[in-house]
This record gives sequence, structure tokens and C-alpha cells, in this order.
Amino acid sequence: MLKHQSQIEFVLEKRLQQAQKPGSARLFEAMRYATLGGGKRLRALLVYATGQALGAKQSAMDVAAAAVEMIHAYSLVHDDMPIMDDDDLRRGRPTCHKAYDDATALLVGDALQTLAFETLCDDILTEKQQSRMVKTLTQASGAAGMAGGQAIDLESVGKKLDIDALQAMHKLKTGALIRASVVLGALAAEHYDEVTLEHLDRYADCIGLAFQVQDDVLDVISDTQTLGKTQGADIALNKPTYPALLGLEKAQQKAVALIEKALTHLDECPFNTEVLAELAQFVVKRSH
Amino acid sequence: MLKHQSQIEFVLEKRLQQAQKPGSARLFEAMRYATLGGGKRLRALLVYATGQALGAKQSAMDVAAAAVEMIHAYSLVHDDMPIMDDDDLRRGRPTCHKAYDDATALLVGDALQTLAFETLCDDILTEKQQSRMVKTLTQASGAAGMAGGQAIDLESVGKKLDIDALQAMHKLKTGALIRASVVLGALAAEHYDEVTLEHLDRYADCIGLAFQVQDDVLDVISDTQTLGKTQGADIALNKPTYPALLGLEKAQQKAVALIEKALTHLDECPFNTEVLAELAQFVVKRSH
Repeated sequence: MLKHQSQIEFVLEKRLQQAQKPGSARLFEAMRYATLGGGKRLRALLVYATGQALGAKQSAMDVAAAAVEMIHAYSLVHDDMPIMDDDDLRRGRPTCHKAYDDATALLVGDALQTLAFETLCDDILTEKQQSRMVKTLTQASGAAGMAGGQAIDLESVGKKLDIDALQAMHKLKTGALIRASVVLGALAAEHYDEVTLEHLDRYADCIGLAFQVQDDVLDVISDTQTLGKTQGADIALNKPTYPALLGLEKAQQKAVALIEKALTHLDECPFNTEVLAELAQFVVKRSH
Repeated sequence: MLKHQSQIEFVLEKRLQQAQKPGSARLFEAMRYATLGGGKRLRALLVYATGQALGAKQSAMDVAAAAVEMIHAYSLVHDDMPIMDDDDLRRGRPTCHKAYDDATALLVGDALQTLAFETLCDDILTEKQQSRMVKTLTQASGAAGMAGGQAIDLESVGKKLDIDALQAMHKLKTGALIRASVVLGALAAEHYDEVTLEHLDRYADCIGLAFQVQDDVLDVISDTQTLGKTQGADIALNKPTYPALLGLEKAQQKAVALIEKALTHLDECPFNTEVLAELAQFVVKRSH
């Protein structure tokens, strides 16, 4: 896991360097600020774990992992802006709009999204892989995926969502991109059967939800320094959360149950799923 | 031209309908608001004019034209936001953030960009065409293209730019996407020679600059109702413009000279360039 975390950092660094052309030096600098410097890199780790289990080439996994992390970074930059969640802290540092300014943060998010799709059109991948990966990543991150979930989240502030509505929102807002990460890993490998892909998708669906439940739990029980972002932000924004709906203990139990279900899907996969299983455990055992 | 303008409206309408999935109905509605309802559609017209001249299939041109207009629409929505140009009026109607709200406008722009690339990954196109078109459109619209030009524009407010710096900014901010439109038209056709493509690119480069010069001129001489956006906005924001640097008359002469140069490049193309020539004239003769 640590090896893949430093690998994705290295790959993102290289991609951002290659992207730098004459233009606004400040914009490129702010893109680096928003993308590099850590984070859990769960989405990249899922690409690598899935790709390796299926025998993908390193270079193909690098491209897919970089693209999905760029999409994730763009979404964080835009979500943190004052007109959205208005967060000052991310990964233990000032958010992009705090370190630069609102207009620059807007452009950083825009340009990172573009760079993600440019990254996927690399000759390292076959044209078929490029096409499928762009399709997968656009569907997961657009209005019917991540951005759509974000819109529902906005509309839900101050409202009472029931558990089904909350779950439907998270399946779009964070779940879609986590599922796409696993699919991208499989597409990097080129050979996979549809039944296995279905099990991998259900695995990803479970850990995506567990991730969100754990995020809500940590917002209650952790502290700002450990989280690297503002503790209690959900409560302050009056956002519906799993602990608010289920109680803290039941929310924690739900996360564990989801991970157990994820592992049963891995049992159906005809290859070494050790790293994927580790990642599932990491989702509920993490402290930030 | 009118035929292509109604064609692109029809295609965008259909694409946005197809994109609508369970999620935030409000987000999809706002995306329709920002994309449909007119505009000059210069970029789509360039795709169609180039594609037709080179014998492209209608369906391939439709996909390319829709994608480039979605990118253009996303850029307008984000540019009009209070943290950028703070414009209230666009195409004679309230801007997206005025009709909805700032957070929704942010997501509309984000999701329209994603939908542009999703649109290009249509099975109507070969995987090779998809790959080349995504590459072309990402390079033209990202940090080394449109978004980069926007960043330079932001940094230039209140500063004295000379004519070369102003031109370099516009080549990214508006020129790159106009050039990409012509390339997308050629890619839709699949068969074209590199020399012709070079002449088409120079034609597009000239009309892209002429378009911007004329935009600056119209900001001075037109009125808000005719423009459909706020007249005098550049002056109010203290933005560097061609009339401010060259004087009004010389700026108008420059636009005409650029169109003449564009036409000489069309003369070198071994096919019927009548519609492309009409479009070049339209750029300087338009009133909005």
C-alpha cells in the first residue's frame, strides 16, 4: 500500500510537470498544490490493486490511477470553495482557495478535470482502452455520478433525509468514483471476465458506502488535527449523516458489516485478492 | 448557417435528454438552461463547415459539434460567476448563477465539461476518432488552452498589457477552442492531408483573433440589448482590450485584415470552402 502511495505521488508529479506549458505559471502551481502532497489515495490504490491482481502493465495502471486522482482532486477543490462547503483545511493544509483565491480555485478544478481526460488519451493505452476509460470516468464523475451527488447534497442541507435517500446520495457523490477506480484497474489489464467484473463492482460498491459511513463517524469522534480537515463540519453545516440517523454505534456496526460483505465478493474472484481485502479493512480502520 | 444553427440546437437538446438519469433534477434543468437557447454557435458552425467540406458523416459532425458547444457553455457559466467576471446577463437572459445560484452554476459547468468528453466517446465514432477528438479538445480547453487564457485574463485585470501579451492571452482564452473546432470537423471526416489541415488551422487562428477583436469593438460601440450581455463590461472591469490599445478605428481595421488573411488560407484548400469563407465574414459583420 505504501509503495503504491508513493508511486501515485511520483506519477502525478510527472504528469503535472509534462502538462506545464507556456501560460499561467500561477495556475499550474495551484494545480500542483491541489493535487500533490498526499491524501489517502484510496482511488489510486484501488486501481493498482485491481490492475495488479488481473495482470495489468504498470504504465497502464499509472495512467488510470493518475486520471482518477485528478478527478478526485478537482472535486475536493470545488467542494471546499466558499459557495459550496466553505472549508479552510484539507489534508492538514489551507484549502486551494485559501492558499490562492476563489477564482484560481475554480480554474484549478476545471483544468484538473480536463487534464484527467487528457491523461487517459495516452498512447500507452490502446484506443479501445482510452475510449472505455474515458466513458467509465465521465459517467462516474458527471451529472449522473459525482457531480449529481454533490447537487443532491447541496439540496439536502437542513432537510431531513431518510437512510435510503442518504445512501442514494452517497452512491453518486463518492460511490461512483470508487467503483470507477476498480473498473479502471480492470480495463488497464484488458483481460477480465464479466462475472468477475460484477463481483469487483459489488465489492467497490460496499467499500464506497463503508468509506462514507466511516467519514461521517470520524467527523464525530476524531479531531481536526488527525482528520486534516475541520472536525464537526457536517454538524456545523447541519448535514444529514449516518451517525445522526442511526446513532454512532449502529453507524460503526454498519461500516463493519459492509466491509464483511465486500470480502464475500472477493472470495468469488479467481485470483489473489489479498491487497483488495487489505484496502477494504483500511477503509474502516483509518483514523482520517 | 441557419440550418446548422438549428441542427446543433436539436442535437444538444437530444444529448441533454439522453444524459438525464436519476439524480438531481435541478442540476439537469440548469444544464439545459445554460446550454440551450441560442448563441451564435460559431464553434459548432466551424465543425459542420469543415466536416462537410471534407465529406464527414452527419452523425460524426453532430457529436463533435455538441462536445465543443458543451465546453463553450461550461466556460461561459464559470466565467460569468461573481468570483470571475460577475456578469448578470448572457444571450439576453439572466446568467446561470442568477437564474439558479452560485453553487449550482459551479456544478453545471463541471458537469457540462464532463458531458462533453462523454459525448465524444460515442460508438458513432471509431475509437481512433474518439481518442483524437478527446486529445484535441482537452488540449484546447485545459490549463495550456482556454482555462490557462482565463487565468492570464484574471491576472491582467488592472495591469497594462502590450498588444503581444493581449494577443497571447486571447490565443489561449478563445483562440484555442476555435482552432479545435476546425480540427474536430476534420477528424469527423477521417480523411484529410496534413498540408490542408495546416491551412485550416491558420484560417481558424485568424478568425479566432478577429472574433476577439470584434468582441472588444462591440463592447464599445454596441448596446446591451443587441449584445445580449452587459455593454461596457470590459471598460468597467478595467480589462485590456484592442480598442484601448490601438484605438477604435485601428482595431476595426485589424479585424478586417485578419479575415482577409484567413481567406487566403482557404484559397489553398482543395475543396469547396464557401461556407468557411461565409463564417469568416460573419465574425466581423456580426452585431453581437
